[in-house]
Amino acid sequence: MLGARGLLRALRSCSTVSCPRPRASVKLSVRDALRSHGALGERVKVQGWIRSTRSQKEVLFLHINDGSSLESLQVVADSSFDNRELTFGSSVEVQGQLVKSPAKRQNVELKAEKIEVIGNCDAKAFPIKYKEKHPLEYLRQYPHLRCRTNVLGSILRVRSEATAAIHSFFKDSGFVHIHTPIITSNDCEGAGELFCVEPLSKINVPKGKFFDVPAFLTVSGQLHLEVMAGAFTQVFTFGPTFRAENSQSRRHLAEFYMVEAEISFVETLQDLMQVMEELFKTTTTMILSNCPEDVELCHKYIDPGQKDRLEHMLKNNFLTISYTEAVEILKQASQNFTFTPEWGADLQTEHEKYLVQHCGNIPVFIINYPRALKPFYMRDNEDGPQHTVAAVDLLVPGVGELFGGSLREERYHFLEQQLARSGLTEAYQWYLDLRQFGSVPHGGFGMGFERYLQCILGIANIKDVIPFPRFTHSCLL
Amino acid sequence: MLGARGLLRALRSCSTVSCPRPRASVKLSVRDALRSHGALGERVKVQGWIRSTRSQKEVLFLHINDGSSLESLQVVADSSFDNRELTFGSSVEVQGQLVKSPAKRQNVELKAEKIEVIGNCDAKAFPIKYKEKHPLEYLRQYPHLRCRTNVLGSILRVRSEATAAIHSFFKDSGFVHIHTPIITSNDCEGAGELFCVEPLSKINVPKGKFFDVPAFLTVSGQLHLEVMAGAFTQVFTFGPTFRAENSQSRRHLAEFYMVEAEISFVETLQDLMQVMEELFKTTTTMILSNCPEDVELCHKYIDPGQKDRLEHMLKNNFLTISYTEAVEILKQASQNFTFTPEWGADLQTEHEKYLVQHCGNIPVFIINYPRALKPFYMRDNEDGPQHTVAAVDLLVPGVGELFGGSLREERYHFLEQQLARSGLTEAYQWYLDLRQFGSVPHGGFGMGFERYLQCILGIANIKDVIPFPRFTHSCLL
Repeated sequence: MLGARGLLRALRSCSTVSCPRPRASVKLSVRDALRSHGALGERVKVQGWIRSTRSQKEVLFLHINDGSSLESLQVVADSSFDNRELTFGSSVEVQGQLVKSPAKRQNVELKAEKIEVIGNCDAKAFPIKYKEKHPLEYLRQYPHLRCRTNVLGSILRVRSEATAAIHSFFKDSGFVHIHTPIITSNDCEGAGELFCVEPLSKINVPKGKFFDVPAFLTVSGQLHLEVMAGAFTQVFTFGPTFRAENSQSRRHLAEFYMVEAEISFVETLQDLMQVMEELFKTTTTMILSNCPEDVELCHKYIDPGQKDRLEHMLKNNFLTISYTEAVEILKQASQNFTFTPEWGADLQTEHEKYLVQHCGNIPVFIINYPRALKPFYMRDNEDGPQHTVAAVDLLVPGVGELFGGSLREERYHFLEQQLARSGLTEAYQWYLDLRQFGSVPHGGFGMGFERYLQCILGIANIKDVIPFPRFTHSCLL
Repeated sequence: MLGARGLLRALRSCSTVSCPRPRASVKLSVRDALRSHGALGERVKVQGWIRSTRSQKEVLFLHINDGSSLESLQVVADSSFDNRELTFGSSVEVQGQLVKSPAKRQNVELKAEKIEVIGNCDAKAFPIKYKEKHPLEYLRQYPHLRCRTNVLGSILRVRSEATAAIHSFFKDSGFVHIHTPIITSNDCEGAGELFCVEPLSKINVPKGKFFDVPAFLTVSGQLHLEVMAGAFTQVFTFGPTFRAENSQSRRHLAEFYMVEAEISFVETLQDLMQVMEELFKTTTTMILSNCPEDVELCHKYIDPGQKDRLEHMLKNNFLTISYTEAVEILKQASQNFTFTPEWGADLQTEHEKYLVQHCGNIPVFIINYPRALKPFYMRDNEDGPQHTVAAVDLLVPGVGELFGGSLREERYHFLEQQLARSGLTEAYQWYLDLRQFGSVPHGGFGMGFERYLQCILGIANIKDVIPFPRFTHSCLL
């Protein structure tokens, strides 16, 4: 198989030399057919699923979609082609000529010479109904079929583009990609929310003896990335992470994706924040440029104000305030909070919301959190009675916390004390080793990938931006 | 942070205008410093780890590596800079001028004006010893430090390049990337080798009640990709898969990565085989072009014949023989096998090895396996008494099975019968649905990513091509 581009090239090169007719039709994706301005008049073959049918007296119109783009290809056929099996959802192969379309909304249409139904679709049984705009909640019941709707098609194409954009951002910036492990014996962070892993069969290996140590699903690749930052300076990972949270929230999943980066020889939070802002803006700009129709559909279908909000985020510099300043802002707010803001307490969702609004709906970095709120590996700011660590969260409109990061404690004795205080010295000897052999100042961050998609597309429920959502009481397919 | 390329651009643009001196040094990666032919004489700052030191009467030589390339940057300093802390493994920051090197092996060296030790390294305690070539087996004991050796550095940079090359191959061919789920309730394939997943804490959710159904780690994304191929035509996934195999083999891990693709409207195995061969050749060519030194080091260090074997694979068309032909070849072989070759029995490792040699060490597709050997979803060839399915494996020299794939049974009634025979009808109702609504002929394949790396680099043990290997009795870090 040549792949879509190769096929288009083949078709184009053929159209410049004299080809004896008739000859076999060249197979084209809908996307390439729609873009084939130079190939009008060529005989082509297009395969896909019927998205709409309209039968006039002498003409039959079909719209064929194959997932290569949001837009479908209009097929125009003599009414003699009409057939009871040409229904919404059925799969077809159409051969014919690409011609200039008289319609305003498209450049190209396919004048059918042959239409073959490949697999029919029983409209009564099919849970997706012709011309209905099903709510996202309804579609969630059909994880094996919902990708056939326009809206899920667009979301998942954007997800694919975002994945590619993130990989290329890091590659272009000189980062080495690392597959951090999914199964891990690190068990100290968020212990209450861990999933543990055991072989199903106890026949060959007794319980707890497969790995000889308790094994869990990773909650973050950070510590493993720190290992690699000690050799490659700039590293990133982009993979699944897990929380056994008993939550039905619109912002949480049991299985979700994180983009994590770790950078050596970094001495200030500002250096990290610059990479986070660049990652957000470069990736988003790339998506808007590569699949504008898909993004537009989401903005229109889900949340009409989202386009402007996103542009506002992209054209402004992100803001920075310290945790201490944030608490002051909250204390002076006229709004009544359920949780009274107080120095030393975690920021709640209501606080995050207020802070972002207060900052004019521009993403805002909150830096330097109380040490007592943060894990052992964050770098001590040594700043007297208040005692903060060099941590940073990025809050964005609509979603709240999108990134979290910190400088890591690279000083052997500081880290040793922190581990001793938490009773972790033995388990983290290897982590201390990294500080014993050529330690360097370093830091990193993680971005929740689904929250990022929610943020750019304006989608309220995280279950709609992942192909197969996993959460309490649900693991469909 | 500008990223390495941005910094180099900044340095270059600065070198074309008149900059008053002295000014702040521009930070460069070792890779960019080595390539900065146009920037000789510029003041730069390089940070990394000392890979070697040599002290002469009046001159001190250091080699600095920061993981951006296999090659280190030579630093030349006045002997007054010599310092007991400038040891192998310690981290340093060097400022100075990039100058043309008189040495044959490098173009550029850094004339030091300032050397600062950032983190020292106790040579006695450091398990990696100066100037020693540690066996890969020895290094496996130190998963947190082995990435600091040349050979693991090269392997992991190749792994990162291969990841990028695979993503770009599929993107350029019009495939949509899908994150298939890690936790799944599908339990029917390879049931004996599944890992099951449970929340660690039983406080909030009673045993077995988190997802309400038994949940496992995925063994393949295929079935979920088939869902997506029903909307996007061409899809791929590239993520972790799991087997609870009690194995210490050099070809197996409990956690490994698979590249899987699924393509709709595909009617022959040959169409799939063409994509597999293109994937192998395009990706390999891209890696050889993007990190030739890293590949060369592996070939030299591990297996001197591998370079020629790989070129042989790349320049020849892959071969195809049927399973039935393969059994005939084995039966006629003069070699004595431990397992007697017989139609209807699985091909063993010794058989695979013989077949590849028989084919002149060119990768060979084996097609059309007995139905009884293969899972329910493979397409029935309806070929009479022998009864085969449209399955394909690709065997490659040194590694054996690298790809496995098949056409899928897209015919509702064939699949229904197969499910009924296996007692799976209820569990796979959703999978049958895909055949009820616009079914299309389709097929796909999976490639073991670690085996691919073994194959191109000539590395015998799979544990050396993954950052953190997981296998029975081992889950370090």
